[in-house]
Amino acid sequence: MDLATIIGIIAAFGLMLMAILQGSSLIIFLDVPSALVVIGGSLGVALINFPLGDIISAVNVAKKAFLVKEQSINKLITLLMDFSNKARKEGILSLQGAMDSVDDEFLIKGLQMAVDGQDPEELKTMLNTEIDYIQERHSKGADIFSQLAMISPSMGMVGTLIGLVQMLQNMNDPSSIGPAMAVALLTTFYGSVIANILCNPIAGKLKTRSKTELLAKTIIVQGMESILSGENPRVMEQKLHAFIAPKLRESIFNK
Amino acid sequence: MDLATIIGIIAAFGLMLMAILQGSSLIIFLDVPSALVVIGGSLGVALINFPLGDIISAVNVAKKAFLVKEQSINKLITLLMDFSNKARKEGILSLQGAMDSVDDEFLIKGLQMAVDGQDPEELKTMLNTEIDYIQERHSKGADIFSQLAMISPSMGMVGTLIGLVQMLQNMNDPSSIGPAMAVALLTTFYGSVIANILCNPIAGKLKTRSKTELLAKTIIVQGMESILSGENPRVMEQKLHAFIAPKLRESIFNK
Amino acid sequence: MDLATIIGIIAAFGLMLMAILQGSSLIIFLDVPSALVVIGGSLGVALINFPLGDIISAVNVAKKAFLVKEQSINKLITLLMDFSNKARKEGILSLQGAMDSVDDEFLIKGLQMAVDGQDPEELKTMLNTEIDYIQERHSKGADIFSQLAMISPSMGMVGTLIGLVQMLQNMNDPSSIGPAMAVALLTTFYGSVIANILCNPIAGKLKTRSKTELLAKTIIVQGMESILSGENPRVMEQKLHAFIAPKLRESIFNK
Amino acid sequence: MDLATIIGIIAAFGLMLMAILQGSSLIIFLDVPSALVVIGGSLGVALINFPLGDIISAVNVAKKAFLVKEQSINKLITLLMDFSNKARKEGILSLQGAMDSVDDEFLIKGLQMAVDGQDPEELKTMLNTEIDYIQERHSKGADIFSQLAMISPSMGMVGTLIGLVQMLQNMNDPSSIGPAMAVALLTTFYGSVIANILCNPIAGKLKTRSKTELLAKTIIVQGMESILSGENPRVMEQKLHAFIAPKLRESIFNK
Amino acid sequence: MDLATIIGIIAAFGLMLMAILQGSSLIIFLDVPSALVVIGGSLGVALINFPLGDIISAVNVAKKAFLVKEQSINKLITLLMDFSNKARKEGILSLQGAMDSVDDEFLIKGLQMAVDGQDPEELKTMLNTEIDYIQERHSKGADIFSQLAMISPSMGMVGTLIGLVQMLQNMNDPSSIGPAMAVALLTTFYGSVIANILCNPIAGKLKTRSKTELLAKTIIVQGMESILSGENPRVMEQKLHAFIAPKLRESIFNK
Repeated sequence: MDLATIIGIIAAFGLMLMAILQGSSLIIFLDVPSALVVIGGSLGVALINFPLGDIISAVNVAKKAFLVKEQSINKLITLLMDFSNKARKEGILSLQGAMDSVDDEFLIKGLQMAVDGQDPEELKTMLNTEIDYIQERHSKGADIFSQLAMISPSMGMVGTLIGLVQMLQNMNDPSSIGPAMAVALLTTFYGSVIANILCNPIAGKLKTRSKTELLAKTIIVQGMESILSGENPRVMEQKLHAFIAPKLRESIFNK
Repeated sequence: MDLATIIGIIAAFGLMLMAILQGSSLIIFLDVPSALVVIGGSLGVALINFPLGDIISAVNVAKKAFLVKEQSINKLITLLMDFSNKARKEGILSLQGAMDSVDDEFLIKGLQMAVDGQDPEELKTMLNTEIDYIQERHSKGADIFSQLAMISPSMGMVGTLIGLVQMLQNMNDPSSIGPAMAVALLTTFYGSVIANILCNPIAGKLKTRSKTELLAKTIIVQGMESILSGENPRVMEQKLHAFIAPKLRESIFNK
Repeated sequence: MDLATIIGIIAAFGLMLMAILQGSSLIIFLDVPSALVVIGGSLGVALINFPLGDIISAVNVAKKAFLVKEQSINKLITLLMDFSNKARKEGILSLQGAMDSVDDEFLIKGLQMAVDGQDPEELKTMLNTEIDYIQERHSKGADIFSQLAMISPSMGMVGTLIGLVQMLQNMNDPSSIGPAMAVALLTTFYGSVIANILCNPIAGKLKTRSKTELLAKTIIVQGMESILSGENPRVMEQKLHAFIAPKLRESIFNK
Repeated sequence: MDLATIIGIIAAFGLMLMAILQGSSLIIFLDVPSALVVIGGSLGVALINFPLGDIISAVNVAKKAFLVKEQSINKLITLLMDFSNKARKEGILSLQGAMDSVDDEFLIKGLQMAVDGQDPEELKTMLNTEIDYIQERHSKGADIFSQLAMISPSMGMVGTLIGLVQMLQNMNDPSSIGPAMAVALLTTFYGSVIANILCNPIAGKLKTRSKTELLAKTIIVQGMESILSGENPRVMEQKLHAFIAPKLRESIFNK
Repeated sequence: MDLATIIGIIAAFGLMLMAILQGSSLIIFLDVPSALVVIGGSLGVALINFPLGDIISAVNVAKKAFLVKEQSINKLITLLMDFSNKARKEGILSLQGAMDSVDDEFLIKGLQMAVDGQDPEELKTMLNTEIDYIQERHSKGADIFSQLAMISPSMGMVGTLIGLVQMLQNMNDPSSIGPAMAVALLTTFYGSVIANILCNPIAGKLKTRSKTELLAKTIIVQGMESILSGENPRVMEQKLHAFIAPKLRESIFNK
């Protein structure tokens, strides 16, 4: 789990809790029916909006994004350079053995196709199709959390409207107006917290993760192309380095 | 009807009902003129906005999306692989007979054109044109529900403004202010429920459905291309698998 | 005038009127200065925003969209098929005579160029340029109504702010506060009605109309291409049918 | 200065003034500190957001858009047809002399390159690059006004929040609450007026102007291409007319 | 540091301070817990949303954008013209020496590849890939500030909701209602100031800066292409001038 996320969640929720406790007890912010309307209602709306399968895989994608470490782009470039050297020295078929040490499914597929003697142009088209549809699936995951971030404030507003209508219909006892309105506002509060402190930043992180993963896959396609065309290693390295920031470029030739 | 939708609708409306009943009777949330302004007014605006024919087909599309089961992409790939084998063994004309077992109009059209000896490039162009305009028609359906989700809160606001103006012009009896305002808020409540719990998630599901259906059609185009070029079955399978998630890929060669 | 629009306008305004009359007389919703600020102010802002010529043609376009019936895509396809047969039997020059029965300027231009012996590729490019700029001009018309739908609520808000400031500066007579605020809200009400029940749905209908008209023109370009290349009529029909929904396809060969 | 803009500004501000004067004196709407916060603050934020040079040229662009008359597209087409005739009769070099009567820098550049014997394909590429970056610079001008239209309501809200906090901290004298809140609302009022009656419509007009100017330049590129290829004048006219509405097309051959 | 930014920050904050001090002391606008919820909470949410590395480099990018002066596009064009002359006279290898005086890493890379005898088409592709991914990284920086501008008002609203609920639950002492609500509004105030006066304009400046930097790089790619093809200097200058405004074009041939 990346540290930033832990610190972020603790900071955001901790500071909110501090602000609450400084002015009152926490109890006045807890109301089970309000929570049910916002959380349950939002999940209900999400079930109408998305197929069940998509919601389940979104949860898995989210878990993966928070628990699995990001791939190092630099290590990937080094690996591709190694494969290039191996292929230039021992022939493309030698990559068959090298595949065992790789655990990136996409790279394995590329190598397998190269070893199988697939036409380079076809290989590139096929890997690019795969990238397009990986992007499609990734964006579906982020989309579900973005939608939840739009649904939950709406459900919060629906809940507050319910509370307001009930309060306005029953204003005989002035002393009850304040607390009734406080409770009515709780659903808006819940909706806002769920959207802004949970769903939106999770959707954001999924998008960032997806970009990094797609960058890695794009570099793999470029690398496979260079390997199959038997390109000069220095040129290949320059091409792969074009995808990353100058200060991250560690040439294997300057070591 | 997919289960998720049923559970979703029951959950969202059930929890809302629970929240209402916990604080008052349901009757104070029912007001026929308010409902007429929001529902009838929204439909009226939709009739100005869209041709009648589009609205009718949107309703049909929505019904279909909720009642018809999604096509299995895996079965589709298996079917295309079967056709490929058949064509390789018995010639392309043998697909004429195979067509009877297919009920996807788009696939039938593709097969018919192949059997008719249509030029592969032309066939691809024609099917892709068809995909573009299917997408256009699908997005029209989702668009109507998205528009309704924008119209109904506006009509709700118009209704609330009417109620507010009437209440403000007539504040002699303080005890009537609360209930008058409660009724004024009902149109906002109706508009919000229609938009957030009905129209928006339906538009969302139509979009998801459309994506799956277009994915199936894109795979059919790729499959037809492979069949017509007499491509190696393993390569063809790899190409078709590029469109779907790795864990969904069930190779017919590993069985 | 298409029936849906009439029903829509009557329904939306009728139900709003009903809601008003049910609670008070209509008079309290009529205020000439408020109407002037919102309607006159919005038109003034529109005159700053758009050239006078564009506004005038937008009104014409809107009138046309509501009064002129939509072209039938099916009839158009049949017409193009007829021309194709004629050209195949009697030569391309025979289309000169056929042009008289056509009243679509775009189709006439295409036929004239074909008869003039224009190079097919050039003809296609020229017609596509024309489609691009028709689209540009159409979207300008819809754009003006979309802008008005954004301007009028803003002017409504400006009017309400004026009323609120005046009311707040003069709160000595409590009994005048309610009615003063009611009047202040009228501009917001007017702005909302103009935007949501008039301008937005008109912009929507213009966009839908534009799409249908551009679809017709795209089909004409495809048809001209088929005619000039002397394509097989069945193939040509298949190509033209690719643009429309399967259930609308009426083949002239199955009759 | 185009008449529509003058009428628009007078109408919008005049009607607003009328609405104010009908209910109170103008003085209660004037508050120097409020105006400073909104106007000065918005300009300050604009200075953080944009380089000083961009802001200065945006003002110039805006002045030009309101003062300079729009180029006539029809006259431009006639001019290009004249050049075409001249070039066909007297050779491309004869355009050297014709250039003196032209005051469109872009057309001069095109003609100069043609006379210099530049390769037609290169000339087209170069002029298209120039169009792309003119568009970029134009959109920068409109962008500054669009941003100001987003900044000024925000500064208005900040000003209103300041006023509200001060009022709420000092509610001992009930009679001062109304006027204090009235003053607090003034910044919101200013922000809304600046955004909706000034900045947004100016940004809109800049965008419309830019489109017309780019259309002229696109027609010039098409015209130069026709001239350099020595194209038939009727065909050239047809190509240029494709960019404009049918009813604006005045053929020089029908005169 | 560019002067406009300093003036902008001083003007925006200065005028806000003036507006505050004119009506009350500054102290009532300072509340440590409110500031912690908005600032700390927003940073917390940013940490969930973005990888830590991205946030750190965003801060660096922002610092650089405010402190480093913009590159002069005119000087860059002159430099490229010099290189072109040198290459035409002394051969492409002579650029090796010229590289020492250059401190733009991107230009150095281009020159190095040219000197290494890289194929011109490959060189262009590689530099364009690099531009694409520089753009990607730049937009990430601006994105973080844009997100903060969306997060901070949300946290402000969460803080205000907390304050409102606490106030409404405890309305026994009417004299405390005003101040309690004033404090509740402070978080909304902070959120609005952070978003509108800090984060949004910084994101805006980063975007403007990025555009200028990418323009410089695009001009370098065009210049390298002209140098490698040994193009006529006047034509090369015309091509480079096409990217900038006519009034900025200073030809080296007219001096």
